[in-house]
Amino acid sequence: MLMTPHAYLDSIRQRGITVWFRGEKLANPVDHPVTFPAANCVAETYRMALDPGTQGLMTAPSHLTGERINVSNILWRSRDDLLRRIEWERAVARRTARGALRSPGLDALNALAIITKRIDRERGTDYRTRLDHFLRETHEHDWALSGAMTDPRGDRTKSPSQQIDPDLYLRVVERRRDGVVLRGAKAHQTSAPHAHWHLVLPMGCRSGEEDWAIAAAVPSNAPGLYHIYSRQPGDDRRVEGSEIDVGLAAFGGCESLLVFDDVFVPPERIFLNGETTATRDLVHYFGSFHRHCYGGCKVGIADVLIGAAASIADMHGVLERPIIQDKLTEMVHLAETMYACAVAASARGEPVEDVWIPNLALANVTKLNVTRFPFEIARLAADLAGGAMTTLPSERDLRHPELGKVVRKFMSTRSGIDPEDRMRILRLLEYLTHGMGSTYFLHESLHGAGAPEAMRIMLRKEIDLAPHIAAARALAGIER
Amino acid sequence: MLMTPHAYLDSIRQRGITVWFRGEKLANPVDHPVTFPAANCVAETYRMALDPGTQGLMTAPSHLTGERINVSNILWRSRDDLLRRIEWERAVARRTARGALRSPGLDALNALAIITKRIDRERGTDYRTRLDHFLRETHEHDWALSGAMTDPRGDRTKSPSQQIDPDLYLRVVERRRDGVVLRGAKAHQTSAPHAHWHLVLPMGCRSGEEDWAIAAAVPSNAPGLYHIYSRQPGDDRRVEGSEIDVGLAAFGGCESLLVFDDVFVPPERIFLNGETTATRDLVHYFGSFHRHCYGGCKVGIADVLIGAAASIADMHGVLERPIIQDKLTEMVHLAETMYACAVAASARGEPVEDVWIPNLALANVTKLNVTRFPFEIARLAADLAGGAMTTLPSERDLRHPELGKVVRKFMSTRSGIDPEDRMRILRLLEYLTHGMGSTYFLHESLHGAGAPEAMRIMLRKEIDLAPHIAAARALAGIER
Amino acid sequence: MLMTPHAYLDSIRQRGITVWFRGEKLANPVDHPVTFPAANCVAETYRMALDPGTQGLMTAPSHLTGERINVSNILWRSRDDLLRRIEWERAVARRTARGALRSPGLDALNALAIITKRIDRERGTDYRTRLDHFLRETHEHDWALSGAMTDPRGDRTKSPSQQIDPDLYLRVVERRRDGVVLRGAKAHQTSAPHAHWHLVLPMGCRSGEEDWAIAAAVPSNAPGLYHIYSRQPGDDRRVEGSEIDVGLAAFGGCESLLVFDDVFVPPERIFLNGETTATRDLVHYFGSFHRHCYGGCKVGIADVLIGAAASIADMHGVLERPIIQDKLTEMVHLAETMYACAVAASARGEPVEDVWIPNLALANVTKLNVTRFPFEIARLAADLAGGAMTTLPSERDLRHPELGKVVRKFMSTRSGIDPEDRMRILRLLEYLTHGMGSTYFLHESLHGAGAPEAMRIMLRKEIDLAPHIAAARALAGIER
Amino acid sequence: MLMTPHAYLDSIRQRGITVWFRGEKLANPVDHPVTFPAANCVAETYRMALDPGTQGLMTAPSHLTGERINVSNILWRSRDDLLRRIEWERAVARRTARGALRSPGLDALNALAIITKRIDRERGTDYRTRLDHFLRETHEHDWALSGAMTDPRGDRTKSPSQQIDPDLYLRVVERRRDGVVLRGAKAHQTSAPHAHWHLVLPMGCRSGEEDWAIAAAVPSNAPGLYHIYSRQPGDDRRVEGSEIDVGLAAFGGCESLLVFDDVFVPPERIFLNGETTATRDLVHYFGSFHRHCYGGCKVGIADVLIGAAASIADMHGVLERPIIQDKLTEMVHLAETMYACAVAASARGEPVEDVWIPNLALANVTKLNVTRFPFEIARLAADLAGGAMTTLPSERDLRHPELGKVVRKFMSTRSGIDPEDRMRILRLLEYLTHGMGSTYFLHESLHGAGAPEAMRIMLRKEIDLAPHIAAARALAGIER
Repeated sequence: MLMTPHAYLDSIRQRGITVWFRGEKLANPVDHPVTFPAANCVAETYRMALDPGTQGLMTAPSHLTGERINVSNILWRSRDDLLRRIEWERAVARRTARGALRSPGLDALNALAIITKRIDRERGTDYRTRLDHFLRETHEHDWALSGAMTDPRGDRTKSPSQQIDPDLYLRVVERRRDGVVLRGAKAHQTSAPHAHWHLVLPMGCRSGEEDWAIAAAVPSNAPGLYHIYSRQPGDDRRVEGSEIDVGLAAFGGCESLLVFDDVFVPPERIFLNGETTATRDLVHYFGSFHRHCYGGCKVGIADVLIGAAASIADMHGVLERPIIQDKLTEMVHLAETMYACAVAASARGEPVEDVWIPNLALANVTKLNVTRFPFEIARLAADLAGGAMTTLPSERDLRHPELGKVVRKFMSTRSGIDPEDRMRILRLLEYLTHGMGSTYFLHESLHGAGAPEAMRIMLRKEIDLAPHIAAARALAGIER
Repeated sequence: MLMTPHAYLDSIRQRGITVWFRGEKLANPVDHPVTFPAANCVAETYRMALDPGTQGLMTAPSHLTGERINVSNILWRSRDDLLRRIEWERAVARRTARGALRSPGLDALNALAIITKRIDRERGTDYRTRLDHFLRETHEHDWALSGAMTDPRGDRTKSPSQQIDPDLYLRVVERRRDGVVLRGAKAHQTSAPHAHWHLVLPMGCRSGEEDWAIAAAVPSNAPGLYHIYSRQPGDDRRVEGSEIDVGLAAFGGCESLLVFDDVFVPPERIFLNGETTATRDLVHYFGSFHRHCYGGCKVGIADVLIGAAASIADMHGVLERPIIQDKLTEMVHLAETMYACAVAASARGEPVEDVWIPNLALANVTKLNVTRFPFEIARLAADLAGGAMTTLPSERDLRHPELGKVVRKFMSTRSGIDPEDRMRILRLLEYLTHGMGSTYFLHESLHGAGAPEAMRIMLRKEIDLAPHIAAARALAGIER
Repeated sequence: MLMTPHAYLDSIRQRGITVWFRGEKLANPVDHPVTFPAANCVAETYRMALDPGTQGLMTAPSHLTGERINVSNILWRSRDDLLRRIEWERAVARRTARGALRSPGLDALNALAIITKRIDRERGTDYRTRLDHFLRETHEHDWALSGAMTDPRGDRTKSPSQQIDPDLYLRVVERRRDGVVLRGAKAHQTSAPHAHWHLVLPMGCRSGEEDWAIAAAVPSNAPGLYHIYSRQPGDDRRVEGSEIDVGLAAFGGCESLLVFDDVFVPPERIFLNGETTATRDLVHYFGSFHRHCYGGCKVGIADVLIGAAASIADMHGVLERPIIQDKLTEMVHLAETMYACAVAASARGEPVEDVWIPNLALANVTKLNVTRFPFEIARLAADLAGGAMTTLPSERDLRHPELGKVVRKFMSTRSGIDPEDRMRILRLLEYLTHGMGSTYFLHESLHGAGAPEAMRIMLRKEIDLAPHIAAARALAGIER
Repeated sequence: MLMTPHAYLDSIRQRGITVWFRGEKLANPVDHPVTFPAANCVAETYRMALDPGTQGLMTAPSHLTGERINVSNILWRSRDDLLRRIEWERAVARRTARGALRSPGLDALNALAIITKRIDRERGTDYRTRLDHFLRETHEHDWALSGAMTDPRGDRTKSPSQQIDPDLYLRVVERRRDGVVLRGAKAHQTSAPHAHWHLVLPMGCRSGEEDWAIAAAVPSNAPGLYHIYSRQPGDDRRVEGSEIDVGLAAFGGCESLLVFDDVFVPPERIFLNGETTATRDLVHYFGSFHRHCYGGCKVGIADVLIGAAASIADMHGVLERPIIQDKLTEMVHLAETMYACAVAASARGEPVEDVWIPNLALANVTKLNVTRFPFEIARLAADLAGGAMTTLPSERDLRHPELGKVVRKFMSTRSGIDPEDRMRILRLLEYLTHGMGSTYFLHESLHGAGAPEAMRIMLRKEIDLAPHIAAARALAGIER
């Protein structure tokens, strides 16, 4: 079953999800000017799965039900699944200037599929069966899943059990006959307020920290669960009802702190429970899978930014100047390099258990470039935008009966260009370079799926230098 | 006379300056939550001139009245004036995370002093006498001056007289016996709403464009003059009255479009009138002087950002890690390189007419680095900040009687750190990397005083490659 | 038939190839201390095709004869051929610190296959049949082919026919019944002295320049054909017979100016003859195919350099320091990014005529990164090498009965490390960062297969910005 | 007294300095084709001190004798001495493409002057008197001094006394009534074979390592002292007698391992003897002073490289293309940024004891940029050079009666350019980017006066972050 975007939004509206926003409880996570664009961005993944022009890209057969399902919920069964992922991630991001917000759930699903299968084999548990059951329901209902891993973590130099407050890492506080009770929180939860279910994953735990080694599926309306919605630069403009000043009216993202105030989970929704030795691999898989997709979704945003920069240069009449072309080409080069890394990670993918995974080294190489290049792309875009991007009058000035004429007069550029269109493009450029959208194009690129140091650690782990050293010594004529 | 900050703010309140803000006329440019921090930042230049701890740096004797005046209004009479400039620019910026907002006026004064003296000598005019008269008054009243050069410019490929609308460059529309009438606008006017006078300068004009070659002093309350105030990311938060969420409550900057709706100027306030051949040098001097000061003012903001990054690393307990120290050192290195370029431009300064000017090549080298390094400093700061910078709850959530406890619980970090303090530093980091402050640290660094290409053109002009080529040919053994 | 390396070297020795070296004619292109390492590097491609450990990678079935042939001579028949190419290019380069020197011939073959098929279809010619005939012979004899495109070009602002000397682009000077006569030269001919045949390709020609639009296969012993062998930094050391000081004794590369002093070519070896309109595509295909492979061969050299840098850090006892690990990781990251771009170009390859070609945009993205990253990798390697890399005593000092003890004493480092081994690694590092090997790792990376600007031109051509602009405008709410 | 270059070279010829070169003892350090360019480069500092056009820059009054002496031997007595230093360093380097080779001696003198004065005051010793006596003789004889600090160091993780071989740091092996006996070596001794005296300085020592804490002046012909001369890429070409192929015939540099095989030093030449606590400051001063001058001498080489790049672009007829101008401007920008940092370090200099020293933080900032920018300048120069730089025929080919015509034909470029001149410029470009000159422009820039990490350590030490942190906290509203 593929939900319509309308049905999806309704299902979220009516699910009874608790969201706190600026100290007040929202009626629902959809119908507020600040939250709607984020909800609508998730809805776009539903829309594109039904749109005949994109359905081929956005859907795939479920290996459980055989029916076509959204690619956001599949297990990767082939290299082609991995290659296609980068394409649809880029396509959604290019359409929304934000991204395919169900991706963390997708990464969580696939990472869990591997780890649960491995644990079951080693320990005789039945986690994978439970996961498959949940997965089948997910496919049947076309649920939007979130992937919830990052704990608040408190003192970074201490592990979960060493924290002054043990809740700084999500944990089991009670083990009952009929299930477990979770307490704590998950931080930086991208688009989690608009999910039907949360796939909760643990961060790395050591022996003795079994209570923190918990993975589970939790419905987003579970008692005790609530969100504290983050505020980001420029989000207030949405409240005003301005269309131009927001930069991008239709789509956006959101982050929240997801609080577990003693949330009960029954056994059939538990996929890891105390197996601390499996947590490190789970973190590595989930993190690397997610890093991989940045070579699609952030490139789609880059496409929009490049398009906006080219548009403004065209409006200013300078698009064909060699120096302008040179800068646009540099932006394209950086964007395509990020994309290429992700495509290569797919092309060098391989099966682990029954899941095809991207090459882990290249997935981390992808993301390490994504922690750098968007900043340079944004700098070049700002260069092409010109000073007007930072000194624009407001839409109300433009709409004012008298003042509006003056604004139009002095915002005009070459013949044939509507000054309002110029203002719209400049606001979009502001949005992506230092407004709300820069949160995602720049800062989420830096920290999403782990800080740059996490990629470096994985690279050191995945790329063995012994063959490099052997090659050098052989060529230098050093006998072993 | 040195005005107190209080007196300064009152003088601006009562001056009758017209400012349009989101489609409405403000009572005055000071007492609005969005405009106050910018006004207060100008006031800080008055405060520091009276503060015994900074008075030595911030004041100097007037060469006209002999009394100590604010350094924002001096003519540079020595290399030491140029060296000191970088110090006080950095000091003000470090205190405000914004900068010394009277600097464009200072640059306009000094550029005009040179050009008027030169024209007077060549043509027997008396522009410099008029300027000196205005300067004496300025010193006596301790006025805040703006420097207004950038025209809206319309089609970038066409000169003033070729535009469809001739007003896209400010021009004389009427020449009367008792003066001239100006029409047009000046764009990107930094802190202009808080100035007592505007020093209006022309952009480059050709022969036949005499009406656009106009320089003058215009009182900020002149009939026909008004501002359209720009809106920038995060400015809305100031309206709410939140202290933490704004990132920086006390100080800020502002930009406006300054409209001249037939503004009359009497002869004694006119400093250039139709001498088109002088306009190119005027642009080069004004631009280069202003580029020079970026090696002070943007470095002061960098200092704050480095301090904030070090603070958050300390709060997270990771300040002493080699990889963190390495990043902080890199930030310091980049900041000090920008500073060093400006100091060198001062140290290699020389007198032109009766004004000491910075070395023009090095002033442009300074600014060209400033168009790049702040972006990397900001990226490194964001790296150290961690993901929490982009997913923070609001101050209202923190102040909520119940929710506040949860926010504090999950925002806590290592022992002894108040979660609220952590949120404050993170909001300051947001402000400077992608909030309202980034407008100044990043984007004004890119475009203020000209786009990067303007620096490159000046470098090509100022650095003659002939001696380089001669040295290479001699060493290669090529006979001329 | 797969030739043994021994048979290959003998075949080149006895072929009667004319090579001028420092003003003297060589007996043959193999047995000279400066030329041997380059010949041996080509031989390595024969060796690896027979070595059971690499045969799978280095050979593939001929689509003409069905027998296994060297991958250096195949037409690409599938995406997998393209993916494998990057692997064997990297493997050869890692084994030789130089590269797979038959690659330009491979690129010429495939580019010609497409263009000849297209022309034949359009004009009824039989070029492709001729090429297939030549190709079959090539497969049967396991010939080493060179690809010869770059003309000397004289004045870069003028086209072939506008040059003062028309020979500055290779051209037909006589059209005879039995064939054509070629005059001119091809510059920068990589390893051409060690080829059996040259595949001559034209650069871009316009209408009226039919005489320059010539493609042909020319045997390397054709009358009138001779090489002027280039000299490169450090090549003299090979003459001395030192093993250590050369840095890399076994392998190397070479360049030559290939002069055509009225060389006759019969019709069956001509593949393009006056079809000027086809030359631009031929240049684009040949150039882009060759750029693609740099993401393999230069990465293999990077692997060696990374291994050498890790070795020296290990010898100095600092390998595990965080700051050292950080630099090694950065080198790996840059190398893998280049590799990833090439893999992605393969993965996004597609058939044109009956040849599978890499994605042209990504092939150019690959090479554009290759014009940059090796310089940074070399800088980091030099950083890890320490000052000793630039101040090493000679091997003769080391071998001196008395002095040798002193050299060993002061070149010693941590316990257990042989000072001679340290010197060997340092000489290898010198070779690759600023000795003869840097010619290939750095400067050939910059200019081989075209200067950086050529990649930028191709990127502008291949990546259409219209969809980017449409996406931006749609999101900004601009109606078409 | 100012020696003539002729007298200087004679004095070195006749001094009886022992130099081993490729396993053989040289008759003298001057008259060998490999050593002469380095000797001649030192001679240039004598030549420029007498040349009326440069004498003003290259000489200053001795504060001991009152006579004009070479600036290579002065104590810095004013800020202007520091500012002038950068100018003459750049002038010498621009004239030689190498640098002012007496600079390490100059830095050693000034560092010792400070430290000896300080120790004398604290401990009642008379080191400074001894030094002044030596300095007076130096001024009277116009000696060339070397500064010798870097020990071979063996295992980098161990201090002098922990090494397996205690001689890996230079040390006192015998304390006699009439002086001390030194054993060990100093590595990376720039131009030391052409010095009259060596100023020997210790590296950092701890308590208990008194025997290693030795500073002294040692005549370059002292019994037991000898050099092992380093070999560098391309040095062999000098032996052949080719003028063009060497790239730069007249000037060069050299490095040696300076061995102390039980060298006796009398008390009056000893300036530190066991005062371990002073060694760290001595290292910091010497290192930072030397880092400072790189902002002059490496910039002079950059000037030559920029000139060579502009020349070749001009010969190719593309000098005025926007993209070429853009690259040249970037090279200039990077060169001037390095220069500006050094000028700023001078301008912010201050007196310590009776010596004016550059600002230590900015001196290290200068050098940290010098470890980076030359690599990018060289990359851009190589880009402009084109492929011909790496594939040039030899001078012998050019001089060959028949072949020479062919070489000239195909090396010709636009009308009016002599192909030989083009070859000369290309060889100079090769020399500076990956030949012998790159040793100095690139790799000595990286490691001379300490590896990059040494600069970072000094920056961390010199720039106190506490005021930055205080500024950030105050602006964030955090109460102390």
